[in-house]
Amino acid sequence: MRGYTQDKDAYLKRLRRIEGQVRGLQRMVESDTYCIDILTQVSAVTRALQAVALGLLEDHLGHCVTEAIADGGPEASEKVKEAAEAIGRLVRS
Amino acid sequence: MRGYTQDKDAYLKRLRRIEGQVRGLQRMVESDTYCIDILTQVSAVTRALQAVALGLLEDHLGHCVTEAIADGGPEASEKVKEAAEAIGRLVRS
Amino acid sequence: MRGYTQDKDAYLKRLRRIEGQVRGLQRMVESDTYCIDILTQVSAVTRALQAVALGLLEDHLGHCVTEAIADGGPEASEKVKEAAEAIGRLVRS
Amino acid sequence: MRGYTQDKDAYLKRLRRIEGQVRGLQRMVESDTYCIDILTQVSAVTRALQAVALGLLEDHLGHCVTEAIADGGPEASEKVKEAAEAIGRLVRS
Repeated sequence: MRGYTQDKDAYLKRLRRIEGQVRGLQRMVESDTYCIDILTQVSAVTRALQAVALGLLEDHLGHCVTEAIADGGPEASEKVKEAAEAIGRLVRS
Repeated sequence: MRGYTQDKDAYLKRLRRIEGQVRGLQRMVESDTYCIDILTQVSAVTRALQAVALGLLEDHLGHCVTEAIADGGPEASEKVKEAAEAIGRLVRS
Repeated sequence: MRGYTQDKDAYLKRLRRIEGQVRGLQRMVESDTYCIDILTQVSAVTRALQAVALGLLEDHLGHCVTEAIADGGPEASEKVKEAAEAIGRLVRS
Repeated sequence: MRGYTQDKDAYLKRLRRIEGQVRGLQRMVESDTYCIDILTQVSAVTRALQAVALGLLEDHLGHCVTEAIADGGPEASEKVKEAAEAIGRLVRS
């Protein structure tokens, strides 16, 4: 069980859609599409990926981190630190 | 008491340093500094601001959110949702 | 002929690699990989996509925009504005 | 003369406004404002800084880079490369 388990099908659907968008980018390059139109589409794919990341993160905070805190064990602060580092990587990417 | 209260002086010091960097940007514009050098400095200020945001967020998760969850009250999930929205604003800015 | 035409094969190779990474994300979700490990991989894919975008943009500036300016026609400033807007979309995504 | 010279006053005004926003952040920290409200304001300052950067970049492309290309000298491609690197720093910050 992971934080995202209950939304697993929805995440898989979104990731398959992103895979299709990346294949669409390949077709755009192959058919010599105008650079700016490819860039617009790359921005759209990047936003779709980040929306998936934000969803996973919210699920992670609401399940894994919440449970570690509710358990009251020593690993709660470890989980918070780990989540903060993942947020840092997202913000900087 | 806020999540960042115990690090308040450190945050104020960092924000005063950022204020000084923004004044430095004004001096660069006033003295006709080369555009690219100003852009490099804007990137540095942006990164400094985001480092402050990531620190505040980690403190918020480790204190405010942690306490709401440990309290076991109904507002825990509210706090997680609110934090996730703030993370979304950071990632998109 | 587009700005990226001479590097077309290299771009296609990078985009196929990104497509493979997105499929890897699907396998991670399917096999209940730990949320944080998926997030780390999403950040890597996002960075790979943005590297492609930055390459396309440099090629676009160095070919399409450069040619429009060298031609001295009225569309040069149009091309610069269009490129600036694409940069804005990248920065905000 | 720089690309932004003709808009110098407008840039200085925007940077002074950003300086005021950073001082506002300090007051928020001093008066124990709720973490999430500070984060919302940090996101607003970050966006304001990036809008300045995008403006400077467009001016730079429209003047400095355009002139180097129109001159037809060997430094045109150098300018394009330099601008692309600055865009990369912005996208990653």
